[in-house]
Amino acid sequence: MTSRGLFTPIFVPDAVQDAVADEAWLRAMLDVEAALAAAEAAAGVIPRDAAEAIAAIRPGLGDLGIAARDSGSPVVPLVRRLREFSEWAHHGATSQDILDSAAMLVAKRALVPILAELDAVVARCAALVREHRDSVMAGRTLLQQAEPITFGLKAAGWLAGVAGARDRLRELPLPAQLGGAAGTLAKLGEHGPAIADDFAALLGLAAPRLPWHGDRRPVAELGAALAIAAGAVEKVALDIVLLAQTEVGEVAEASEGGRGGSSAMPHKRNPVGAIRARAAARSVRAAAGVLLEAMAGEHERAAGAWHSEWRALSDALANTGGAAWSLHEALDGLAVDPDRMRANLAVEGDLGAAQTFIDRALELE
Amino acid sequence: MTSRGLFTPIFVPDAVQDAVADEAWLRAMLDVEAALAAAEAAAGVIPRDAAEAIAAIRPGLGDLGIAARDSGSPVVPLVRRLREFSEWAHHGATSQDILDSAAMLVAKRALVPILAELDAVVARCAALVREHRDSVMAGRTLLQQAEPITFGLKAAGWLAGVAGARDRLRELPLPAQLGGAAGTLAKLGEHGPAIADDFAALLGLAAPRLPWHGDRRPVAELGAALAIAAGAVEKVALDIVLLAQTEVGEVAEASEGGRGGSSAMPHKRNPVGAIRARAAARSVRAAAGVLLEAMAGEHERAAGAWHSEWRALSDALANTGGAAWSLHEALDGLAVDPDRMRANLAVEGDLGAAQTFIDRALELE
Amino acid sequence: MTSRGLFTPIFVPDAVQDAVADEAWLRAMLDVEAALAAAEAAAGVIPRDAAEAIAAIRPGLGDLGIAARDSGSPVVPLVRRLREFSEWAHHGATSQDILDSAAMLVAKRALVPILAELDAVVARCAALVREHRDSVMAGRTLLQQAEPITFGLKAAGWLAGVAGARDRLRELPLPAQLGGAAGTLAKLGEHGPAIADDFAALLGLAAPRLPWHGDRRPVAELGAALAIAAGAVEKVALDIVLLAQTEVGEVAEASEGGRGGSSAMPHKRNPVGAIRARAAARSVRAAAGVLLEAMAGEHERAAGAWHSEWRALSDALANTGGAAWSLHEALDGLAVDPDRMRANLAVEGDLGAAQTFIDRALELE
Amino acid sequence: MTSRGLFTPIFVPDAVQDAVADEAWLRAMLDVEAALAAAEAAAGVIPRDAAEAIAAIRPGLGDLGIAARDSGSPVVPLVRRLREFSEWAHHGATSQDILDSAAMLVAKRALVPILAELDAVVARCAALVREHRDSVMAGRTLLQQAEPITFGLKAAGWLAGVAGARDRLRELPLPAQLGGAAGTLAKLGEHGPAIADDFAALLGLAAPRLPWHGDRRPVAELGAALAIAAGAVEKVALDIVLLAQTEVGEVAEASEGGRGGSSAMPHKRNPVGAIRARAAARSVRAAAGVLLEAMAGEHERAAGAWHSEWRALSDALANTGGAAWSLHEALDGLAVDPDRMRANLAVEGDLGAAQTFIDRALELE
Repeated sequence: MTSRGLFTPIFVPDAVQDAVADEAWLRAMLDVEAALAAAEAAAGVIPRDAAEAIAAIRPGLGDLGIAARDSGSPVVPLVRRLREFSEWAHHGATSQDILDSAAMLVAKRALVPILAELDAVVARCAALVREHRDSVMAGRTLLQQAEPITFGLKAAGWLAGVAGARDRLRELPLPAQLGGAAGTLAKLGEHGPAIADDFAALLGLAAPRLPWHGDRRPVAELGAALAIAAGAVEKVALDIVLLAQTEVGEVAEASEGGRGGSSAMPHKRNPVGAIRARAAARSVRAAAGVLLEAMAGEHERAAGAWHSEWRALSDALANTGGAAWSLHEALDGLAVDPDRMRANLAVEGDLGAAQTFIDRALELE
Repeated sequence: MTSRGLFTPIFVPDAVQDAVADEAWLRAMLDVEAALAAAEAAAGVIPRDAAEAIAAIRPGLGDLGIAARDSGSPVVPLVRRLREFSEWAHHGATSQDILDSAAMLVAKRALVPILAELDAVVARCAALVREHRDSVMAGRTLLQQAEPITFGLKAAGWLAGVAGARDRLRELPLPAQLGGAAGTLAKLGEHGPAIADDFAALLGLAAPRLPWHGDRRPVAELGAALAIAAGAVEKVALDIVLLAQTEVGEVAEASEGGRGGSSAMPHKRNPVGAIRARAAARSVRAAAGVLLEAMAGEHERAAGAWHSEWRALSDALANTGGAAWSLHEALDGLAVDPDRMRANLAVEGDLGAAQTFIDRALELE
Repeated sequence: MTSRGLFTPIFVPDAVQDAVADEAWLRAMLDVEAALAAAEAAAGVIPRDAAEAIAAIRPGLGDLGIAARDSGSPVVPLVRRLREFSEWAHHGATSQDILDSAAMLVAKRALVPILAELDAVVARCAALVREHRDSVMAGRTLLQQAEPITFGLKAAGWLAGVAGARDRLRELPLPAQLGGAAGTLAKLGEHGPAIADDFAALLGLAAPRLPWHGDRRPVAELGAALAIAAGAVEKVALDIVLLAQTEVGEVAEASEGGRGGSSAMPHKRNPVGAIRARAAARSVRAAAGVLLEAMAGEHERAAGAWHSEWRALSDALANTGGAAWSLHEALDGLAVDPDRMRANLAVEGDLGAAQTFIDRALELE
Repeated sequence: MTSRGLFTPIFVPDAVQDAVADEAWLRAMLDVEAALAAAEAAAGVIPRDAAEAIAAIRPGLGDLGIAARDSGSPVVPLVRRLREFSEWAHHGATSQDILDSAAMLVAKRALVPILAELDAVVARCAALVREHRDSVMAGRTLLQQAEPITFGLKAAGWLAGVAGARDRLRELPLPAQLGGAAGTLAKLGEHGPAIADDFAALLGLAAPRLPWHGDRRPVAELGAALAIAAGAVEKVALDIVLLAQTEVGEVAEASEGGRGGSSAMPHKRNPVGAIRARAAARSVRAAAGVLLEAMAGEHERAAGAWHSEWRALSDALANTGGAAWSLHEALDGLAVDPDRMRANLAVEGDLGAAQTFIDRALELE
């Protein structure tokens, strides 16, 4: 793949970006159409060889987006192409079935590298906890030194936040959607619900009780969980930026090969991973806001709210993965200076239950 | 209590507003201080009669808010008052312990009437499902008639959305917070973690593994769950507003006693419950945005982000309860016109799996 | 007036809170009804003594909010009361005329103390600029020391941001709204447009070309300008919080009388004004988001979006005033330590055009 | 240029997308570096042939984004490339100077097609006003019929909203940014301010009083103005969607060539332009939220907030243009049915000042 341009690569790693790219959506839509045909063939609703033919058609993006302008949905021109090969393509389904199921499939696939980045963050936090269990530093409230803590305890708090958000994301049900033109599966007769369940199983998605074309919780819950994961990451990134300040100097990101340098002052050592993570997290929150707003849609398919979900979901996924990836990078090369921590310490006190809390946090890894 | 003014009563019912009002926060803060003292007394850290004395002090709001300007936290002047009665008040705790635990207590208490309103919405949807299982109407996608559905199926989708969001809200863990000045419980010595667990139990809150002063998921998750509940409510309200249009006329809200009238045109029959619900839901989303943004806080206590949570949490709770209450009111008096539904129907088709989906939705009640 | 409770006084000064309180809205609504009657009497549309009678009625809030539940608008029960005194009250108007005009009147009145606070911030920045024109300190990019600047130059940047936002707010047109039931002023016959202009003049508001019940720019522009003013304030507050860090120590807020202390550590000197300003600014952005979203309303009056504006506008005004007030307080007592600035300085370089930029900024005062 | 993928072309026209694409940002950055060199050469600060050499270097995107990961800014690797050709490239500037000035240049260029689309919307509204000055229809408040208006008056309200938002966008100052490493232009000696003014003039941008690296109003004001323009567009789109409902049928978008059809029901005539406009407008609001939040940045360059602006600004520009373009398309082919309007009319009354308001609105064209 050629350059992905100027800004995206700064904030999103390739594996995540690939997973939410237009090509990934197209692949997901084709997988959804194929699963639909397979489920219908298994139920005897369409011919088996039609299902095989449909599964074999893998058109490229071409000008699909431009062709979608007249309908507002890329499924309309896509189905037109599929039906050149088989009249049974898209049988009994509607655009929204394909796009909603594809959205969940894209999310499921994108969550693999996203969760891997979150796992890496958790693992690196755990390593810091273990290494700096006894590295005493200032606890700071309202950015004033308060009482001593250890860097291990601080990292334990980071670990708890990111691990908890990761677990929620991992457990989130991602349901397939199949309802037909208005949510009754009218064209599938008595076989409808069984086909819908089979369809979900073929896609590796959850089978919903009923179609969710008007109940956008699957998308909104995902958006919220991504925003919370991004928020947990952002908190760590903020702490790193603050600890890396010239006047604090308790941590520094890696500087090999000029990393963290500036165009005007090559000697600088900017906490670039943490900075990128903070920027990416803001994009997630904005996109999640679009997804929450989209819950209020008209009748059996919203006229605009639904359409606002596609790019927002991609953005939320991409930038959550990006925030975790940038933080992972920041933590990977993080130089921690316990001597400076101790030297900066201007308050006294003992460490209370720090070790207990550290042990409890490590169980979350 | 006298009038609560001009706007709040329109959008929030008294029971919910009482539960998030400043008086409720004060009561929660006092309950938290009392639970802290009780847990410390049980551990032998403070005298038992001190704990009893602290539990007995119930100062009024007075000018607490004004007195809080100098510290940015109402706990500072509150503790000053408590310590006039017992030097053991607030022992080993910090402002944030009290406010964070109080926030969870306020939420726990406010969720009682909020969940009751959501339950009422679910029950009324279920009644509509049962009553209109066979009331055929147009399914509408992009606000164009698509295929026939039944009003029972539409209400089944409403039910599924609101019930699911309600269940999530009900299951959300609401943890107490106790960390002391910087999260180590330094002042409580070896007893810290046990006191923290006991403290949570006394408040009827969950006991967290470790202090969450820097891990704001409890607040953010709550905000997100409230936004999603409000969104599920808003979707129903939007459908009602659309079905109640003069040109559609398939439902109407109650009009007894001039309800739904206007200042210029007393004959109008506006869907006022649904309208109020829509407005309230927007406030929830805005407040939830503040809570999500607040996740990124500095070190052991954020300098501003934390302070932004208090009113936003109250707003999110109040308006979620308000949205559900207004929708409940709308549904309570909803006149459904199956004849008009049939007369409006301009498309043909059979009803597919509508009954199956209806049955599945009813299980969620 | 008694206590305003727990949280509001922390973030909003009394003068601003009074200006957006429910009582202020009621007063504005009554002023609007009176101006309407006066303009109509001047045009000979209603009797002159009816106008005088209407101007003399000043009912209290009573249970107006509760009475408004049935219509979703406090104007409906208010007009009912007014008409007990004069059948000519509210002649030819609709709820939205009254509430929209009242909103602009509330804004106009609230902007007096808000702009006064912004002026005070600008003046205090200017004083810092003059005093610290030559106080050399580190310029910091990405929170790393970059090149020297002066504190005067930093404060000049603060000044420019706040002054510019203030000027925009000051220049914003605040139009009256008068359209009647659907925007035609049908009940006022040929006199409509002239009465509308006179009505605006009596209220000291701008006369719009045409009714803006469906064109919500007056509200949205105001929301955006408030968010930008709050953002300019928030930037200064963030810099103060950072400069006040224990490890930086270049500025400190006043600490007389225990100001800035904590419940656990009375010795602390927290930058409480800046912290409060940051929290308030976040509320403004959330409220402005509601106002921007409310632009998309249905037909001649939105069913929910409009209703979401009232509290959001009050919040946006209150917290912009509050953010400016808290920052004003922070700046008023700000102790600046030029020696520490110089001691912290770890980079070298000359000061370039700092003095020129300072001079240019001071012209904005 | 090949396909732009699946979703972007649905919501954003090519001319606007080209203007905010990564290639456009690269071109703008190169133009900015060239202008800087030219201004410096004119002041005698760098050799004239160095400026010419710099202006002649036009590297492609290549892997610039990937190379930017180590610094978080694409300017760092770009400058590295430019300096292979001339050591004078980027003299005295910092990354932010280049990116901020490029952002304003991108905005200035993108506003050409965006304003053209807004002009087209205004013109088409004006045509509808003229054509339907006397087409009586129902005025609808809270989606209930209220009093008669004309479709001309409704379109006059649309015109006023979009024209006003367009005018604000057109008048917005777009300043160049030049401050050097920390805002003093230290490396340019006494020539700094004059070079900065000349630099702005060469770029066709406004010359700011002082560098605005810490005063983000230029970006935030632009974001707000775009959100308001998108909101004005969204309002029209919402009205069209509502008027096009099967049960209302007063307008319909063009249906030539199957436009507005669906994958399941080719006979449908969906208001696809209005739908796309609504979705695009939501993206603008989300992006504007990021830009407003970014105002609060740390010291002389924000560590994350600044980095969040680039993609958000592109999104806000692209989708404002996209919303206007989709609405333009909706209006272009809009079939208006005055007979249906009259047939739907269920309320009586005269038209008051409708003609006066129409005439006033037309002056805004």
